[in-house]
Amino acid sequence: MSAADIKTIAMRTKRASRALVNLSSVAKANALNAMAEAIRNSAAFLQEHNRKDINKARENGLSNAMIDRLTLSDTVIEGMATALEEIAELPDPVGKITGMNRRPNGLDVGKMRIPLGVVGMIYESRPNVTADAVGLCLKSGNAVMLRGGSEAFNSNSAVVEILKKTLIDTDINPDIIGFVPVTDRQAVMDMLKLEEYIDLIIPRGGEGLIRTVVENSRIPVLKHYKGVCHIFVDSDADFDKAYKICLNAKVQRPGVCNAMETLLVDEKIAEAFLPKMVQLFHDSGVEIRGCDKSMAIVTGISSATEQDWYEEFLDLVLAIKVVGGINEAIDHIETYGSDHTEAIITENYTKALKFIKEVDSSTVLVNASTRFSDGGEFGLGAEVGICTSRIHAYGPMGVEDLTIEKFICFGNGQIRQ
Amino acid sequence: MSAADIKTIAMRTKRASRALVNLSSVAKANALNAMAEAIRNSAAFLQEHNRKDINKARENGLSNAMIDRLTLSDTVIEGMATALEEIAELPDPVGKITGMNRRPNGLDVGKMRIPLGVVGMIYESRPNVTADAVGLCLKSGNAVMLRGGSEAFNSNSAVVEILKKTLIDTDINPDIIGFVPVTDRQAVMDMLKLEEYIDLIIPRGGEGLIRTVVENSRIPVLKHYKGVCHIFVDSDADFDKAYKICLNAKVQRPGVCNAMETLLVDEKIAEAFLPKMVQLFHDSGVEIRGCDKSMAIVTGISSATEQDWYEEFLDLVLAIKVVGGINEAIDHIETYGSDHTEAIITENYTKALKFIKEVDSSTVLVNASTRFSDGGEFGLGAEVGICTSRIHAYGPMGVEDLTIEKFICFGNGQIRQ
Repeated sequence: MSAADIKTIAMRTKRASRALVNLSSVAKANALNAMAEAIRNSAAFLQEHNRKDINKARENGLSNAMIDRLTLSDTVIEGMATALEEIAELPDPVGKITGMNRRPNGLDVGKMRIPLGVVGMIYESRPNVTADAVGLCLKSGNAVMLRGGSEAFNSNSAVVEILKKTLIDTDINPDIIGFVPVTDRQAVMDMLKLEEYIDLIIPRGGEGLIRTVVENSRIPVLKHYKGVCHIFVDSDADFDKAYKICLNAKVQRPGVCNAMETLLVDEKIAEAFLPKMVQLFHDSGVEIRGCDKSMAIVTGISSATEQDWYEEFLDLVLAIKVVGGINEAIDHIETYGSDHTEAIITENYTKALKFIKEVDSSTVLVNASTRFSDGGEFGLGAEVGICTSRIHAYGPMGVEDLTIEKFICFGNGQIRQ
Repeated sequence: MSAADIKTIAMRTKRASRALVNLSSVAKANALNAMAEAIRNSAAFLQEHNRKDINKARENGLSNAMIDRLTLSDTVIEGMATALEEIAELPDPVGKITGMNRRPNGLDVGKMRIPLGVVGMIYESRPNVTADAVGLCLKSGNAVMLRGGSEAFNSNSAVVEILKKTLIDTDINPDIIGFVPVTDRQAVMDMLKLEEYIDLIIPRGGEGLIRTVVENSRIPVLKHYKGVCHIFVDSDADFDKAYKICLNAKVQRPGVCNAMETLLVDEKIAEAFLPKMVQLFHDSGVEIRGCDKSMAIVTGISSATEQDWYEEFLDLVLAIKVVGGINEAIDHIETYGSDHTEAIITENYTKALKFIKEVDSSTVLVNASTRFSDGGEFGLGAEVGICTSRIHAYGPMGVEDLTIEKFICFGNGQIRQ
């Protein structure tokens, strides 16, 4: 497939996007609910196509974890349908007018929220992302251009076929879903040059994919590379809260980006706090890599390397460092963190506010688990993704983050002096 | 200067940026007022260095317009000082907390506005941009990395010297101004790779410079390429308002990006409206390039080429097209426009709202001149620039657009179930 073919798909998607700004909230909700029903009714069709991907994955010797992420089980299909229904229920962000003020010359100036236009999704193995992305983009009035991974090609094609058919049935132009029917890397490169037709790129997948996208895109990219989340247990921490929160942040779901990767402990309480904390981690099967000071306090832990402080383990592995106080904790986070999510455990008012103000990660918590850094938990409804670059959106992104505000002005003949 | 040297400047600037989030509004305003005073007191010093640039520009045969933009006249120097004082007066955007809500589990979640970190400015000939950029960044709590044009190198160096000295005098780390002391193109390329240290790039200058930046940057870029602004005179327009607004939009200051470049006229009123309108333009020395239909109605105009519809003339030149109605007008704007600023002149309620809703440019006006698309006119105070890509900010950008919101959460021991 040539660069010209990719451009043709993008142009068609852009053209279709224009009518979306006028689509009523009711029409969008009806289409989303119809999509949910169609996905449910097509379970057999979807699983038939999904089997081709699974068989190929087995032939190619992919890991069980990879095959698991690829599989459209009954549960995953029901989850896709439910997500579309939940998106249908969210408030429509488009058309909201804010900040309308009268200027001294009588001109009324304010802002109106509008869709971005075309959102480009570049993603890896999970075929359910296809339905989620279409749902989130339709809700926010955006067209979407999809380029999924090669492992899930048959599954993604089948999902797109169902969703496009539903759009036709609900009188919406099916071209609002642009599907790139090839999975070679060149197609991604070609897509990333089309800034005239694609307004935003959201890459979802491993750090390698995301770096490739950022290095080659002329289109703005919203992304997060990794989540190296920290908890700092301050000298004025309530130990019971600290034990409970730290354990939850590490073991409740270690494979996700908002799990804790490094625990920082104030040296004033390290001897009192660490033995029981480490025991709790060991009881939950957590492997611990500690600094010299923590190794002098507890046993059964190995020595952390410099690289461990940068590491997103995504597993039952934790780095522990004893620090000289809140300033050293913040410095450590600045140096090794990924701007994702950090928490302090303290009963001290001044240190709690200092941490909230001075840590510039996208989510900062006091006395709560890092695992709360999530669109659903924050009340945003469905989550578009998480952004850790300080542009457009920072932290978990909701449907509103797929829109922007334009200036609108109501005059009665004003001219500039 | 090697890529490693540029990286060293960026690292030092990033490190200095961290303390800025804690700098009080009073300290920032004091420093900005001190900078204004220092600029005024250093007029002779600045003009002495400026003369080196002007002499070199003359030797190199630069145009008078270029030399004019380069010159630090008494008026320009006073303008730099006044701008800094105006920025000092603006409300401080940093630290504002919004949307604080209690979740069902008792966690209080909201957002706090924070600086971006380091803003990279890449700009051409005007040395006053140096002071403006430093002022806007300091106000919003950002450090700034400056890379100005070669024509203004001596002037920019002198301005930076004054500003850094004032920072030292007001107890602020002078490293918050990172100055790239070379002007070769490679320095720009090296800077655009430093996504770890620079959070945002704002290029200011010609379309060529901006395209180079976008094509080579790994860092998010806020920019506008050009302003091809339209006015659509609807069949229900009040002709007196239309004459006055169209004339203002074209001739009041033709060399700026929010001046009108193409006039669209509904065919139902073209014969009644155009003769007097064209006469008014001719009286003001405007050269007109029209479509076939407009050429059949009025004399003394030349035939517009396809390229003219895309053109930002930045001069007393105007393209005129007679269209079949509001839909054709909107289609024309979608096809040839630059997402900058468009206006409709009409007394019809439904068409006014249709235009406001369906035109997705960054500023859309009813019955007012396109020349109002400006941070000062919209009440934003000093203007950072104008953004026409639908990301982060859209339209004129104020100081708040140099900030972002992080999530903050106050808990009392919450863990994720």
